Amino acid sequence: MESNVIYVVGIGPGAEEMMTVQAQTVLDHVDTIVGYQVYLDLLGARYQYKELISTPMKQETRRCEICFEEAEKGKSVAMICSGDAGVYGMACLMLEIGKSYPQIEIEVIPGITAATSGAAVLGAPLNHDFCVISLSDLLTPWELIERRIRAAGEGDFAIALYNPSSKKRSDYLRRACDILLESRKPDNACGYVENIGREGTKAYTCTLQELRNQQVNMFTTVFIGNSQTQMIENQLVTPRGYKTDEV
Amino acid sequence: MESNVIYVVGIGPGAEEMMTVQAQTVLDHVDTIVGYQVYLDLLGARYQYKELISTPMKQETRRCEICFEEAEKGKSVAMICSGDAGVYGMACLMLEIGKSYPQIEIEVIPGITAATSGAAVLGAPLNHDFCVISLSDLLTPWELIERRIRAAGEGDFAIALYNPSSKKRSDYLRRACDILLESRKPDNACGYVENIGREGTKAYTCTLQELRNQQVNMFTTVFIGNSQTQMIENQLVTPRGYKTDEV
Repeated sequence: MESNVIYVVGIGPGAEEMMTVQAQTVLDHVDTIVGYQVYLDLLGARYQYKELISTPMKQETRRCEICFEEAEKGKSVAMICSGDAGVYGMACLMLEIGKSYPQIEIEVIPGITAATSGAAVLGAPLNHDFCVISLSDLLTPWELIERRIRAAGEGDFAIALYNPSSKKRSDYLRRACDILLESRKPDNACGYVENIGREGTKAYTCTLQELRNQQVNMFTTVFIGNSQTQMIENQLVTPRGYKTDEV
Repeated sequence: MESNVIYVVGIGPGAEEMMTVQAQTVLDHVDTIVGYQVYLDLLGARYQYKELISTPMKQETRRCEICFEEAEKGKSVAMICSGDAGVYGMACLMLEIGKSYPQIEIEVIPGITAATSGAAVLGAPLNHDFCVISLSDLLTPWELIERRIRAAGEGDFAIALYNPSSKKRSDYLRRACDILLESRKPDNACGYVENIGREGTKAYTCTLQELRNQQVNMFTTVFIGNSQTQMIENQLVTPRGYKTDEV
């Protein structure tokens, strides 16, 4: 691995087997791995002898700067993100901060994001056009989140909701469902998956009306089918289109 | 691998290193791999000694049935899809046809879809809420595609467009841009990537107004930033939010 390149690596949902071969190769070869402690802990034993550096939550900018400081010392560095590095991940912040370090190149290594790893557990809820929306309003005004939920509802998109709940935001999923019920039927097929790719993976299916009353935790990804989505034996199946036997 | 399970495997964009370890393990162990010939050809030499079965384009239903017939003979079977098995892939059709084969289980193995593998090439265009829309009207009425593009534009989503062009549909990208220009500025940051994860990967950035006049081919994925997306040294960077230094 080159020392003038920082790799921003999506490690997937958690289980090492859900990393790409490319991500594994990068982590095998770098000197230093930087990341949020929870993600460093997800890495298997084979990486624990490396130099591992973490910063607490809310110190993402500092975490990025550490990568550049280590790279400037001549070390090869990987910054890890859960899921995909460019889906609510650190790729954007690294590229922004990278403007101050023009001699260092940044390479983004994609990973499996919860939309597709969670979809695989539930069957095929995103098998046609879909939206990914985070319900976290830490960095985004709630009005914009509402506007996007409304647009996704009206466009009849299948939807994956990230960060559907936290202690401070226990009613956000209910609010999202209420907005979707403006344009969708109460029996619109839905589902959610807890702990994707980690110990204790659990999947549930329900209607949109029922989803409104579910208590989900922060390790959950929620799926809302489009108007064509069927529930087949507790799985969600969104057809690829409106005719059959064609591409 | 169990013979009463069919694995529907997303192999990622093409390069073997962009497969997950899990996908590789499944393909290493099954007896029979079924898929569209182009995808079978993408598989490395290590799989070419296996029983490989393909059907032509537009015979997807037959391709699925073959999987079940082979599984009924006692073989372990994988159906491969490019990208992710559940994003415009075969997972839905396999689950639908699987209703007639209740003794056979279907397991979906996710892969890296072009939205995230292409985004990684361009920097971080999808680093906030985003939509994935296919411009192919083979299975979807164009009116619905238009409605979704309009909704994605109005919701200020970052957007990944799949199947942006073909011989019969050479003006579809222009039509999509014109719909987006109803709600977005002409200088909205955009980009596109050809041959993601394959030989000859090429990335381009441009404005929405310029994208309108680009000739793209069927091996291209198009990215449209949201109103906050910046172009930093020919890369697209969509910020994670509207404040800094928080999660």
